[in-house]
Amino acid sequence: MCREEREIYTVPARGWSAIFLDVGDTIKVVNTYGGQVVDTWAFNAEDIHEHMSMEHSRVSIMKLIPGVGDVLVTNKRRPILSFVEDTTSGEHDTLVAACDCYRYEHLSGSLDHDNCTANLASALASLGQPARSTPSPLNLFMSVPVGEGGALLFVASPTKAGQYVSLRAEMRSLIVMSACPQDITAVNAHEPCDVHYMVI
Amino acid sequence: MCREEREIYTVPARGWSAIFLDVGDTIKVVNTYGGQVVDTWAFNAEDIHEHMSMEHSRVSIMKLIPGVGDVLVTNKRRPILSFVEDTTSGEHDTLVAACDCYRYEHLSGSLDHDNCTANLASALASLGQPARSTPSPLNLFMSVPVGEGGALLFVASPTKAGQYVSLRAEMRSLIVMSACPQDITAVNAHEPCDVHYMVI
Repeated sequence: MCREEREIYTVPARGWSAIFLDVGDTIKVVNTYGGQVVDTWAFNAEDIHEHMSMEHSRVSIMKLIPGVGDVLVTNKRRPILSFVEDTTSGEHDTLVAACDCYRYEHLSGSLDHDNCTANLASALASLGQPARSTPSPLNLFMSVPVGEGGALLFVASPTKAGQYVSLRAEMRSLIVMSACPQDITAVNAHEPCDVHYMVI
Repeated sequence: MCREEREIYTVPARGWSAIFLDVGDTIKVVNTYGGQVVDTWAFNAEDIHEHMSMEHSRVSIMKLIPGVGDVLVTNKRRPILSFVEDTTSGEHDTLVAACDCYRYEHLSGSLDHDNCTANLASALASLGQPARSTPSPLNLFMSVPVGEGGALLFVASPTKAGQYVSLRAEMRSLIVMSACPQDITAVNAHEPCDVHYMVI
């Protein structure tokens, strides 16, 4: 195993990290302290207009939540990330928009709060990409139980410290992750934390 | 009742129709022959970057499918359409992407098929708007049962001839509707039909 394969990257609590993956690279996202949601986006590295899409992926896998063996697709219905490993209980979310300043305005009365939408915009800006629309994210480790009549609930992420998922790139991809800064609803157990990842 | 209030517009089978609504206008979408899915988009008439968003609306209403009394919101989490009347059994969909050429390529081997994504692009182009990303639509009259473990199923629309929904504009809006041309899966009972609407 070479040094690059072992390098550990941090998605800082409330912040973001971005990395390019080649075809066949696998990113392992570790919930280091447990209970942290990670909003995750993937873009075709050659064409940022093509991106992982939850509404297209749900049709491709014919279920709400991807699991090991499932392939997430882009808005052109092409494979972009495969779910290859998951040591959690399998609770992730494809239904919920990234948090944004408007969400915090509704929750707290103030627009001034770190948020996943701004984190994505910062990540893309750091790569010279203009602010664009925000694709609906893959919310790793987020638990949104669907109850009677399709009722949704936000509960604390059940992911335990050290549990992880691994995703393999099916095209050359730009991955952006945001360690969700939501500290008003229960989703991060009210205490956003760092997570870590490596490429293997 | 004046003439404008009675005017009946057609969304032609496999085609599209677009209309501007003022605040307080209500659009009544009638499933004239039954069994027809209508992919529906709403945009802020003053800023096309702001549009009705299924991933934001699900958070706002905390359920998968909107019903009477629910308010659909934009990607800025502002009310855009209120669900004011529904004579169907209440089966609609917020989970599934608009069909597109890639979907038909997967289903039939050919890209050459009418599709809701192209219909939206044509509608916007007719108004001088460049092709943009395709927001996830509100699929009126579409039935996508969610089963055990979040499994999704496509079944024929159960909407009967003459059943309708009414939606009230909460901001000045551009509404685009596509009478879904899907004739390979069951969703339109394999026979796309016209639907009609009026503004009241």
